[in-house]
Amino acid sequence: MTENTKTNNIDTKRTDLFKRLHEINDLASAAALLNWDQTTYMPPGGGAARGRQLATLQRLAHEKFTDPAVGKLLDDLNPYAENLPYDADDAALIRLTRRNYENATKVPSDFVSEIASHTAALYEIWTTARPANDFAVVQPFLEKTLELSRRFANFFPGYEHIADPLIDQVDYGMKVSTIRPLFAELRAALTPLVKAIGEQSPVDTRFLHQFFPEADQLAAGIAAIKKFGYDFQRGRQDKTHHPFMTKFSLGDVRITTRVNEHDLGDALFSTMHESGHALYEQGISPQYEGTPLAEGTSSGVHESQSRLWENIVGRSLGFWQYYYPKLQTIFPAQLREVPLETFYRAINQVERSLIRTDADEVTYNLHVIIRFDLELALLEGKLAIADLPDAWQEQYSTSLGIMAPDNRDGVLQDVHWYGGLIGGAFQGYTLGNIMASQFYAAALQAHPGIPGEITHGQFSTLHTWLRENIYQHGSKFTTTELLHRVTGGPLSLNPYIDYLRNKYGTIYQLS
Amino acid sequence: MTENTKTNNIDTKRTDLFKRLHEINDLASAAALLNWDQTTYMPPGGGAARGRQLATLQRLAHEKFTDPAVGKLLDDLNPYAENLPYDADDAALIRLTRRNYENATKVPSDFVSEIASHTAALYEIWTTARPANDFAVVQPFLEKTLELSRRFANFFPGYEHIADPLIDQVDYGMKVSTIRPLFAELRAALTPLVKAIGEQSPVDTRFLHQFFPEADQLAAGIAAIKKFGYDFQRGRQDKTHHPFMTKFSLGDVRITTRVNEHDLGDALFSTMHESGHALYEQGISPQYEGTPLAEGTSSGVHESQSRLWENIVGRSLGFWQYYYPKLQTIFPAQLREVPLETFYRAINQVERSLIRTDADEVTYNLHVIIRFDLELALLEGKLAIADLPDAWQEQYSTSLGIMAPDNRDGVLQDVHWYGGLIGGAFQGYTLGNIMASQFYAAALQAHPGIPGEITHGQFSTLHTWLRENIYQHGSKFTTTELLHRVTGGPLSLNPYIDYLRNKYGTIYQLS
Repeated sequence: MTENTKTNNIDTKRTDLFKRLHEINDLASAAALLNWDQTTYMPPGGGAARGRQLATLQRLAHEKFTDPAVGKLLDDLNPYAENLPYDADDAALIRLTRRNYENATKVPSDFVSEIASHTAALYEIWTTARPANDFAVVQPFLEKTLELSRRFANFFPGYEHIADPLIDQVDYGMKVSTIRPLFAELRAALTPLVKAIGEQSPVDTRFLHQFFPEADQLAAGIAAIKKFGYDFQRGRQDKTHHPFMTKFSLGDVRITTRVNEHDLGDALFSTMHESGHALYEQGISPQYEGTPLAEGTSSGVHESQSRLWENIVGRSLGFWQYYYPKLQTIFPAQLREVPLETFYRAINQVERSLIRTDADEVTYNLHVIIRFDLELALLEGKLAIADLPDAWQEQYSTSLGIMAPDNRDGVLQDVHWYGGLIGGAFQGYTLGNIMASQFYAAALQAHPGIPGEITHGQFSTLHTWLRENIYQHGSKFTTTELLHRVTGGPLSLNPYIDYLRNKYGTIYQLS
Repeated sequence: MTENTKTNNIDTKRTDLFKRLHEINDLASAAALLNWDQTTYMPPGGGAARGRQLATLQRLAHEKFTDPAVGKLLDDLNPYAENLPYDADDAALIRLTRRNYENATKVPSDFVSEIASHTAALYEIWTTARPANDFAVVQPFLEKTLELSRRFANFFPGYEHIADPLIDQVDYGMKVSTIRPLFAELRAALTPLVKAIGEQSPVDTRFLHQFFPEADQLAAGIAAIKKFGYDFQRGRQDKTHHPFMTKFSLGDVRITTRVNEHDLGDALFSTMHESGHALYEQGISPQYEGTPLAEGTSSGVHESQSRLWENIVGRSLGFWQYYYPKLQTIFPAQLREVPLETFYRAINQVERSLIRTDADEVTYNLHVIIRFDLELALLEGKLAIADLPDAWQEQYSTSLGIMAPDNRDGVLQDVHWYGGLIGGAFQGYTLGNIMASQFYAAALQAHPGIPGEITHGQFSTLHTWLRENIYQHGSKFTTTELLHRVTGGPLSLNPYIDYLRNKYGTIYQLS
């Protein structure tokens, strides 16, 4: 074979691989749109068929991806990829595609569609069961979810912990054996902080619960994230029950929010949160479009961006020095008499509360750790679904010293278990918090002027740095690789604990 | 083979066929949602990828349907189907699926792709050529469309007229040999009616062009179609540029509308029109879900329902006796001083105009017949694309006594030829008008109280009759079969001509 023929051969195979990946991506993107529609605009009557349609698209995408011809192409392209520099796009694409292929071929297509139709059905049931405070109606379905989750894990024999294969799907490389001690260390640092804050006089947040009309709240959130850099030519915001970010292409990255007209913080910070996810996806290199490289690299890194924009930026004093006068203009009657300092303290109130998504930065991780521990107990067989509501209450009582009056704000609170598997659903939030502080510290090291710029409503230095160092790469680097490239070291708790101690030490005047 | 084994065998094959049909339907439904999203909410950045995603879904659906295994299943199920009563659901399903399969397999996939990419390209060109009044730029593309249309027809050898295979795709069983004389007869009846009306003093419609706020217009339309029976639990309405009805399942049948705040009729009658299409689809038997039976049987019958609800009901004096006081409550400043009679005459104004979609009930069909005749002349080779603009003008001059000042409102007006084939695009509108009157006459024969009920805002007798006689059957019966079952006879012009003469004779006080 001449060198020329060999090159042509590689080109043909590479083209064939791209064609297949694009087709699979088209099916997955269509499924994402069906899901977006289901949670935003779909009328109730559409639910039954929608579950079936989603299952079909996901099954077809899975079938196409697990086609042995894909494996053969990856094998044939392996020598080519191995001769490329590790950081070359094609090397990364072939490496990631092989990892995904090996994951996917372990799970039968029928099982994938069983999960899809089961979770779509359970999601529909949950949307009425939660307001009705009816755990009994979801219980048998959740038992099925747990069974499916166990079966899923068992397609990956040789795991250290039964949750590891589930965690690996969203946070590649992370294991129970590393997360559990990390979370224990974090809990140990948070508990005295929460206790010390609890001994201070409480913050008055009543002014946040005046009447704030929906349209004005939405306008306030949209104006803020436009400043961050969210591109409405390549996205939009709609209302839903449980806010999320979703993507149908790099040119169409959407966010959703919900509005409580008696809680100014709800929509505003959810909008900033989802915009962080969206900035990540909108910032991915266009040449990755339609391939597995064109998405955020892990749940944890994704969450680091949503939490960075929502909390490190969006709940900072510097940001509100810039934005509070604008917010006062939108809500003059409600905020005219409220000074900036009072507003800043109120949106950073630390409180032992029931709802994860409403929780402050300090207690938030306790909510996550509770759920992570419950997931492990369920998967380990140490906890039955029937006992989950009580276990939930017990954990809240132990960790936060409070108990929900009902299951609505207890075990029925989060969509995750009702729209997906049990295992791997929550750890990303806290991993994200930890990494957000690491990344932000690195950004500040490169550009110490960032905090000053933020007080003037300038976010482009930060946004550009994040895009160049993190966003553009999509899934080219693993979480661990990215951490090393960006921060020079591994996952580390210190910057996050320092951040919390400094910020809340000041707010609550702790010694 | 025992009788039992044979039955099991049939059951297995029937189950296999259903499974395949459901999967194909899921792909088609997903494509419909992608299209709905593209024309309602999609941000501009999503366009490029959306085109590719739609093409992928449509190609996969076509590949799955033309799989020889589908043909084999149909062959194997044929003896079973032929032993069933003609009206049995399974007999109808297998009959219709075979017809669709033979259609789909006669046209090579490459040719389907060629049409798709050609019409997509031409559509893009048309969107700028129309505002620029530039026929020259589309001419070579339209010549290619004509060539493709002829080649398409020739995949169905043995036709009577070259347009027949194209008409057959949307109005199965209809032929040029029946439509041409019918349209000639209709034109002969309409021409003196238009002339007589033109001799009367014109109607004052200026009050319809006051400012009518969008939200109120939408509320007025929604309230009306809720009364008709459109089920918002199984549908919704959104805004778009060019209104349409679309369906993602029998439980999710959506309509779209557009609002002109200076034209009260635009959104209102478009909403009623699309609701007629939607009532048809919402009324189909749930057991047909996911099969080819679960859609309206033809372009003509579909249009009969949109026109029945928009015109026969929605523009009737009886309806407005009920609804006009409500409309006056919504728009008190604009309508308080306008009497019912004046309003009724204004929304039924007959006028020789240039734009088909804005045309009144009387002149509308002349617009359609002009286009139908031009399609035939082009396909027959009697008219060249280069001469189409002049031929258009000549036809308008002859039929309506008016001429467009330019091609923008002439030959470039309708999207049909620029986004699809030439042939079969227009006859359904007029067939629908004709059948609407036939169906309505049959409904009145069964329930003479219907017009009286309408004056009291009661539509359930009419809706139920239509659902039982037409809607529930979906595509079970062909247009011709349905006409015979419902009206006792074939397609007939008389009820329609009687309707127009009576209604407009009264409005314009013709002798």
